[in-house]
Amino acid sequence: MLRGLSKAGLGTLGSLRELVELAGRHGFRSVELDPLALMEECGEEEAKQLLQKNGAVLASFGLPVEWRTTEEKFLEDMEKLAAYAAAAKTLGCTSCCTYILPSTDEKAAHFMAVATRRLRECAVLLAEYGISLGLEFVGPHHLRTRWANPFIWTMDETLDWIDAIGEPNVGLLLDSYHWYTTGLGAADIERLLRSQIVHVHLNDAPEVPVEEALDNGRVYPGEGVIDLASFLRALEHIGYDGHVCQEILSSSPPAGTPDELAKRSQEGFDKVFAAAGLNA
Amino acid sequence: MLRGLSKAGLGTLGSLRELVELAGRHGFRSVELDPLALMEECGEEEAKQLLQKNGAVLASFGLPVEWRTTEEKFLEDMEKLAAYAAAAKTLGCTSCCTYILPSTDEKAAHFMAVATRRLRECAVLLAEYGISLGLEFVGPHHLRTRWANPFIWTMDETLDWIDAIGEPNVGLLLDSYHWYTTGLGAADIERLLRSQIVHVHLNDAPEVPVEEALDNGRVYPGEGVIDLASFLRALEHIGYDGHVCQEILSSSPPAGTPDELAKRSQEGFDKVFAAAGLNA
Amino acid sequence: MLRGLSKAGLGTLGSLRELVELAGRHGFRSVELDPLALMEECGEEEAKQLLQKNGAVLASFGLPVEWRTTEEKFLEDMEKLAAYAAAAKTLGCTSCCTYILPSTDEKAAHFMAVATRRLRECAVLLAEYGISLGLEFVGPHHLRTRWANPFIWTMDETLDWIDAIGEPNVGLLLDSYHWYTTGLGAADIERLLRSQIVHVHLNDAPEVPVEEALDNGRVYPGEGVIDLASFLRALEHIGYDGHVCQEILSSSPPAGTPDELAKRSQEGFDKVFAAAGLNA
Amino acid sequence: MLRGLSKAGLGTLGSLRELVELAGRHGFRSVELDPLALMEECGEEEAKQLLQKNGAVLASFGLPVEWRTTEEKFLEDMEKLAAYAAAAKTLGCTSCCTYILPSTDEKAAHFMAVATRRLRECAVLLAEYGISLGLEFVGPHHLRTRWANPFIWTMDETLDWIDAIGEPNVGLLLDSYHWYTTGLGAADIERLLRSQIVHVHLNDAPEVPVEEALDNGRVYPGEGVIDLASFLRALEHIGYDGHVCQEILSSSPPAGTPDELAKRSQEGFDKVFAAAGLNA
Repeated sequence: MLRGLSKAGLGTLGSLRELVELAGRHGFRSVELDPLALMEECGEEEAKQLLQKNGAVLASFGLPVEWRTTEEKFLEDMEKLAAYAAAAKTLGCTSCCTYILPSTDEKAAHFMAVATRRLRECAVLLAEYGISLGLEFVGPHHLRTRWANPFIWTMDETLDWIDAIGEPNVGLLLDSYHWYTTGLGAADIERLLRSQIVHVHLNDAPEVPVEEALDNGRVYPGEGVIDLASFLRALEHIGYDGHVCQEILSSSPPAGTPDELAKRSQEGFDKVFAAAGLNA
Repeated sequence: MLRGLSKAGLGTLGSLRELVELAGRHGFRSVELDPLALMEECGEEEAKQLLQKNGAVLASFGLPVEWRTTEEKFLEDMEKLAAYAAAAKTLGCTSCCTYILPSTDEKAAHFMAVATRRLRECAVLLAEYGISLGLEFVGPHHLRTRWANPFIWTMDETLDWIDAIGEPNVGLLLDSYHWYTTGLGAADIERLLRSQIVHVHLNDAPEVPVEEALDNGRVYPGEGVIDLASFLRALEHIGYDGHVCQEILSSSPPAGTPDELAKRSQEGFDKVFAAAGLNA
Repeated sequence: MLRGLSKAGLGTLGSLRELVELAGRHGFRSVELDPLALMEECGEEEAKQLLQKNGAVLASFGLPVEWRTTEEKFLEDMEKLAAYAAAAKTLGCTSCCTYILPSTDEKAAHFMAVATRRLRECAVLLAEYGISLGLEFVGPHHLRTRWANPFIWTMDETLDWIDAIGEPNVGLLLDSYHWYTTGLGAADIERLLRSQIVHVHLNDAPEVPVEEALDNGRVYPGEGVIDLASFLRALEHIGYDGHVCQEILSSSPPAGTPDELAKRSQEGFDKVFAAAGLNA
Repeated sequence: MLRGLSKAGLGTLGSLRELVELAGRHGFRSVELDPLALMEECGEEEAKQLLQKNGAVLASFGLPVEWRTTEEKFLEDMEKLAAYAAAAKTLGCTSCCTYILPSTDEKAAHFMAVATRRLRECAVLLAEYGISLGLEFVGPHHLRTRWANPFIWTMDETLDWIDAIGEPNVGLLLDSYHWYTTGLGAADIERLLRSQIVHVHLNDAPEVPVEEALDNGRVYPGEGVIDLASFLRALEHIGYDGHVCQEILSSSPPAGTPDELAKRSQEGFDKVFAAAGLNA
């Protein structure tokens, strides 16, 4: 497994270059970032060299298409997707992810039908560039009633949705925070095939009742109550050899410089990987 | 357009043969029935001759797969689908239909995902036999709250679902009763392409407030309040040249012999086709 | 059926605007042109007004994606497809077409597999914008051995390919020149469903043995030997109500001004539509 | 990796039961056989017990659908596929395979289009039963010109075809004999993802020039010239943890009793797994 950083949890960064350098300096081997923005910031050649010099690869990027609102917005975004995919391919990235909000103001069944078509379209386009699409189920309980109608939030529901989309390059983004808040255990990971997982996030939860864990109340790996050792061991067990990236969403910025926060993240990863008996 | 009969609205029939003969005797040119059952009742050769002799073709048959309950039941039924499709093909039938209940005890979004996959599977198999799959949206208001969660019941939702299923041979079964109970007009039909319609049902509604029209409270074409002339003219306008079959669902059997009821149906069809200015 | 013009057969045009105006001036109701180029030439608002003022709609545009050569070229082109589709949608166009060369220097079976994936991808993207993809089989005999290996050139092969691509929005571009050079008759059109035809081309052939009719040796409708009256009547018979556009490919430019050539085209269309007993 | 036996290479067996028992007696952990035939031979309960008692699982079964000839034959076979899939699922089997002949008397491109649709249909149906479809490219040179037109025979062509079929549950059946006869090396396996491999066959080739290795001239693993240690190590390297089954096709039956031949197979597997440094 390859440890990775996203900008969430590093305070305010001045540039994407800074994110890549922080990863390089603190023992991370991948980053999550917008490939088109990096190419615009640095130019293609320098972007490639920056990654190489810092021993980092591009783990994944967020799907730049809003598939949850109007058809107009969706189509507008679709016009740009191929450019993102081409940039990602150029930088060697093979994964793109999006999250599923557990409730919706739309009529749930109809929204599911529309979203199935839209994500299928994204998947087909991404496939041409060798990129898989990861769907992230979102567990925090407060979001299940945040909007009028329940949508989906469990891993099994998400797997069924992936079957409905029906494209070979769609799988899960598995986030330890959502694994924890939906009450899953190691056995639930062990019944997956490695090929069903597109990407992994590693986050920890504060010591509050699980029902009260907020989506933007995450803490650094190893600083909370989630059994991340079991999480990682189960992934290892099924042969997962992809990226494991931190994404510390919080309501207020964490204290400390980006460098201090990246160091803190590194120590957290060291701790939980050691607890899992893994060196990676 | 080819007028057709199903057994719903003809009282108690002794056999499928009787249905075909009633159609022949009363100027109908198609029937809706189970092709496998007809072949079992008559044998293949006689089934073909029976249809030919009565100037009737097989308009459509009900999808013999329960896609709304457990996976076990679904798979059990799938084992038989190819045999039905082969029998239908043998009898020259190119359409198979299923209806969508407007509410469900399942979680709506998840059920939509599962049902999308299941109907896609049915559609792919039917396609091999040259058969299209028609989805019937169901309008009566009482069914929208009959089960715990709203599912879908409008034509537009159904068209979106058809897009989500994503197979070339899936379209609408358009029933005048559901057209009426969902508040549609001629213009809603006119914005369809002929190719989006797999099959049509022609039924009438009693003179009660539309919100109180019950699914099994239908009346014979021309005996109720639905503007069937507009319905048929709109279909003609978009070039619909397929079957238009009666399906009079009622809570108690209608009075009269099958022959009397078929004659009553014929007179109803004559009346509304004449009102629409159509000879067919 | 809506008569249409493409630029092929009108000599050298100074602009796309000229094509639209020629169509308007000579009784044509549609044009085939590159929607993005028209928007660039005129701006969006003026493009819309130009079409409206000339009573013309955008019939179809050529698929701007090279799917026959390298994966690199294909992906490069795919980056632009959504922009074309969005422009076409803005201008009310619902059809995009590409032609199939009857032979290839690639290994035929492998090329078919690769091309199936590529065209499927194009179709899925176009579907989002409400656009169908028409595949044009190409009949002239000399092209069947122009490259090393035979590919496909008959209507039936193309229909089978459309099934293999498996998307709901893929159909035929039926060109009278290819209908003629592959030896088809009216009955072959009559066994199609209207929904299988995305677009139609109307061209005529010189009085040479059919085996010697060259792809770029076409003549104006009504000036050659093809039985275009039968062709049009068969289309009418199956309810085809779409565009019928001229595309006079020739080895040297025709003599005459664009206006004279458009007038000649108009007279040709008048002649063959009259022969078919059609007013459209 | 789980070692497995098929009946090819064991002489004449009296029953499927005998195959399972030979596997159990000689250290094999899986068998390749027709699940429906086993259920018919033994009954469902006894079939399950037989497998369990012999410590064997059902590795894979041959696709019981002839997709290479007429549509009639294809549809006839499709009627039975769900029953096979249901039987396989009952016995815990998740893989079904078919082989690709490297040449064909059909026009190659058209046959590829038709076969793409047919195999897609098989894959969609199998998916419902949790079964993947493995496509086996076939390497022996003599078969490339056995029929009139070249089809496909390389791994890369087959991967492209799998993309064209476009279903999530289609992958490779990788046979060491075809790996060898198409000139592949360990690096070609190492660039695969584990999830691209549905099933593996282990066979050896006699000491003849590779161009002369006949499809039915195979020898037992470890008795020939293929570098099976590299083959197995490469599979291990990419995390392949599925079945590896022997299929010794030969022009005349091998000498010896089934028990002697199974023992010989066991020794062959022992030898090559040891050479690869694997215990499995």
